[in-house]
Amino acid sequence: MAPAFTIGVDFGTNSVRAIVVDCADGRVLGVRVADYPSGERGVLLDPRDPHLARQNPADYLAGLRESVGGALAEADREKAFARERVIGIGTDTTGSTPIPVDADNRPLALAPQWRTHLAAQAWLWKDHTGAGEAEAITETAQLHAPQYLAPIGGRYSSEWFWSKIWRCLKAAPDVFHAAASWVELADLVPAVLAGVTSPAAVRRCVCAAGHKAMYSRAWGGLPSAEFLARLDPRLAGLRPRLYGEAHPADRAAGTLAGGWAAELGLRPGIPVAMGGFDAHYGAVGSGVTTGTLVKIIGTSTCDIAIAPARERLPDIPGICGIVDGSVLPGYYGLEAGQSAVGDLLSWWVERVCQGGETDHAELSAEAARLAPGEAGLVALDWNNGNRTILVDQRLTGLLVGQTLHTSRADVYRALIEATAFGARAIVERLTEYRVPIERVVCCGGIAEKNDLFMQIYADVLGRPMLIAGSGQAPALGAAIAAAVAAGPAAGGYDRFETAQERMTSLKEKRFMPDRGAHRVYDQLYGLYRRMHDAFGGVAGAGADFGALMKQLLGIRERVAAPAAGSAA
Amino acid sequence: MAPAFTIGVDFGTNSVRAIVVDCADGRVLGVRVADYPSGERGVLLDPRDPHLARQNPADYLAGLRESVGGALAEADREKAFARERVIGIGTDTTGSTPIPVDADNRPLALAPQWRTHLAAQAWLWKDHTGAGEAEAITETAQLHAPQYLAPIGGRYSSEWFWSKIWRCLKAAPDVFHAAASWVELADLVPAVLAGVTSPAAVRRCVCAAGHKAMYSRAWGGLPSAEFLARLDPRLAGLRPRLYGEAHPADRAAGTLAGGWAAELGLRPGIPVAMGGFDAHYGAVGSGVTTGTLVKIIGTSTCDIAIAPARERLPDIPGICGIVDGSVLPGYYGLEAGQSAVGDLLSWWVERVCQGGETDHAELSAEAARLAPGEAGLVALDWNNGNRTILVDQRLTGLLVGQTLHTSRADVYRALIEATAFGARAIVERLTEYRVPIERVVCCGGIAEKNDLFMQIYADVLGRPMLIAGSGQAPALGAAIAAAVAAGPAAGGYDRFETAQERMTSLKEKRFMPDRGAHRVYDQLYGLYRRMHDAFGGVAGAGADFGALMKQLLGIRERVAAPAAGSAA
Repeated sequence: MAPAFTIGVDFGTNSVRAIVVDCADGRVLGVRVADYPSGERGVLLDPRDPHLARQNPADYLAGLRESVGGALAEADREKAFARERVIGIGTDTTGSTPIPVDADNRPLALAPQWRTHLAAQAWLWKDHTGAGEAEAITETAQLHAPQYLAPIGGRYSSEWFWSKIWRCLKAAPDVFHAAASWVELADLVPAVLAGVTSPAAVRRCVCAAGHKAMYSRAWGGLPSAEFLARLDPRLAGLRPRLYGEAHPADRAAGTLAGGWAAELGLRPGIPVAMGGFDAHYGAVGSGVTTGTLVKIIGTSTCDIAIAPARERLPDIPGICGIVDGSVLPGYYGLEAGQSAVGDLLSWWVERVCQGGETDHAELSAEAARLAPGEAGLVALDWNNGNRTILVDQRLTGLLVGQTLHTSRADVYRALIEATAFGARAIVERLTEYRVPIERVVCCGGIAEKNDLFMQIYADVLGRPMLIAGSGQAPALGAAIAAAVAAGPAAGGYDRFETAQERMTSLKEKRFMPDRGAHRVYDQLYGLYRRMHDAFGGVAGAGADFGALMKQLLGIRERVAAPAAGSAA
Repeated sequence: MAPAFTIGVDFGTNSVRAIVVDCADGRVLGVRVADYPSGERGVLLDPRDPHLARQNPADYLAGLRESVGGALAEADREKAFARERVIGIGTDTTGSTPIPVDADNRPLALAPQWRTHLAAQAWLWKDHTGAGEAEAITETAQLHAPQYLAPIGGRYSSEWFWSKIWRCLKAAPDVFHAAASWVELADLVPAVLAGVTSPAAVRRCVCAAGHKAMYSRAWGGLPSAEFLARLDPRLAGLRPRLYGEAHPADRAAGTLAGGWAAELGLRPGIPVAMGGFDAHYGAVGSGVTTGTLVKIIGTSTCDIAIAPARERLPDIPGICGIVDGSVLPGYYGLEAGQSAVGDLLSWWVERVCQGGETDHAELSAEAARLAPGEAGLVALDWNNGNRTILVDQRLTGLLVGQTLHTSRADVYRALIEATAFGARAIVERLTEYRVPIERVVCCGGIAEKNDLFMQIYADVLGRPMLIAGSGQAPALGAAIAAAVAAGPAAGGYDRFETAQERMTSLKEKRFMPDRGAHRVYDQLYGLYRRMHDAFGGVAGAGADFGALMKQLLGIRERVAAPAAGSAA
């Protein structure tokens, strides 16, 4: 069969990356990264509100053009490649990043009258302005519709769809009323490529719908109008203008529109895969299977696992999302995460020790000379709250065991260990609920560069730690989705499993658990877990410090309030 | 009356300091500091045993000559001064620093055959080789003679008299058997000046005897032969060669021997005051009175208070010592302490942040811009264990509340606050037992240099923080004792209270508690105290983490053990 290629496009927080991939083996023929031109590294900020983070939708369109055009131009240099042999295009994005659109499915912010209005832009995943709304949604659902919370860990987040839309309704009603609908960035990009000109015609992915918008077939789609009306009747009024059904990743979102085909030199009509979140397509590109946990390790960590959808999976307390078909068709997709991993190490090295890149390496080398338990420290990894399994942003860090001899490398190692213990709490929660985890595949710079980190995780988890073969797993996952959407007749695949087998790989370097180290870490994890439960407010933990960190935050907020008032 | 002068000599850890003082007003006419020539800054170490710390007794003699001679030479330049107007000499030393002596009261180590034997030297206060012996003494006393432990906080320390002597008996029986007796450095120095040539004739101070050797009139002096025999029959055999009675500070230890008088140009026969510990004479030189807590703040902090001996003071749990007459005659002397204060800040600034002197000042300035509670942190000040009120060296540090924004100045401030909370726990324990504390007088470099530190203490304690007028309070206290020993007829005083009134002063700078800050610190102290009780293993604390720090140490020791074995 003639060679076939797909394109994968990954919309990150600061830039967009496109790759051109050989469907036979996943080899990358061309890459291009385009930085977003607006704001601070692509993020629009508000100096008056540290919780605000938006993006200019025009950046997405410019980035799409530049990255795909550039990747194709690079691929052109390869003899085997020809643009007419590209059989599909797939995309992934950050999320939940909802965007208000007009009746033509154009982001409001592209229109001159809304161009500079922050509420009319894309509401980036890390925008936390809807914290109050998230709390109210959680409380209302706990009282009136607990089933909505069960599959998303029991708590609705300020980072998610409804918190943001409701916040917009309150803070910028003009934008809310001008919006014909709201579309997740993950759904908007494929719709743009497919030339969809009405929000009603946008095919929504179950990944964003199920993990962020409380969508489930079990209750007929999005939350009921009744429920939304309890929040605000105008949200209930928006409901019919959103969507009734969401789709798994093996369906096409549409076919490439003529204008884009002409501009990019591709065949018109090739399939555009369903959109999805970067972590989910990252898991696909890392070769996620039953028994494999994929960890996307960066400033924070996102964990993705799957479980066959043959039998009904119970709700798992504290796991952010369990959604049928959100990662791979035919499987539950499970999402968990840790709020600070790379960020925790950077905090120590850069903020406290005031070091740079070389200090990371030096501390790592020094910490590697310590045996597990030798530093006599144990820490809680909560400097940025706890996403899983406690789902509590108002938790903070803790370090215990320091003496006058404790060094910065001792603490550095203790912080790595703390994140590994946090990872173990997640793995244990999953396996308790019969989701098997036999091995861990990681992607991200830390996994590739920090051997100490990987070995500690192997020793703490008692499982092999592997590294995804591709350094750009999300884009590869999107390219795989495109190959599946194209199907075997076109040179693609009929199933994700087969496509993953051919197109993904693992690096040769792997980290196996050391039995002796694992025994010591069992003991340290026992201490971690006692403090985790006591300070995390887990019922029945015996020792109750569940309110202490919040009391500290409360004192801080009361003390800071008058100062903020007088400065205003 | 003709002017009268006394000499105060303070034997520290690294050097000895002598001052010549005007009895009328405490003015210093001459000072000289002599460094000890031996070992590492005066301390003999053993590379194979980090717990060992000894001193060469020859250094004391050389230091005494050089410092007193130098101070007198400086005073000679003053017109009002004449050596024949020196009416007495007083001394203070570190302790418990016991020294094995021969039948002529000469330190064994001065004899050629013992010169290089580490066990024949002075066993410096911070020698911890007797940790196992201390534990055994505590256990034996708990079972058979709990009255011995009641006035010393409930636990016998490895730093004290009997732990060291017993250790010597086990580790170096040849030295133990060669020693005619053991004399505390605090008692040896006055005996040397008075020309005492038999250990039986050495007048022992109640300060060392009561605080460190389980001496009390209540049970007829030192612990009974029966009790000592339970430890080791050979200790019981030593008992008659020690002492039967100990004396408060207003008695003379003797009179200046002719040889010393000739060498120093002083009148022979002037009184040599009873020796005492540096902290105790430091309290005298800082003007300790009923209602005043004296804090000697250095790497660690020593707290001294007094209470009238008219009525019997109850035992106060956790207070290291309550000894009738140990500070001032007619008062109970109470001793408490914190194991790491300056050391805790140095750990953070120098070891973790790898900064120097200027960084202390910069962090202090930055931390001073924070309001109480603003950093959102609370710490336990136990990086070197807890001396008072938990009396547990195997406790370690704890920090809670850190976020990704926490700065090194935030932690620096939290550590100062932690030591202030530790100070408050001591003050509250004393006042609970009806020892009034209305104000705090501090001495030491931190008190004089770090305004932030002093203000935080004032705000946490809710009491005025004052600074002793003299920067060399222990030597001044010793000079005051000399003036009292000399008596009014010679130009001295009949009572310590009168002498202190005339000869001590306070600096003008004082730190008053701020009411708003005190309110915030009340809340933070509540959180500190909950963690203090839970992690300190206080019975009935509700949350029980009393074993956790020891479990961490246990893991560390087990992990480190094979490595230490293979290195040997």
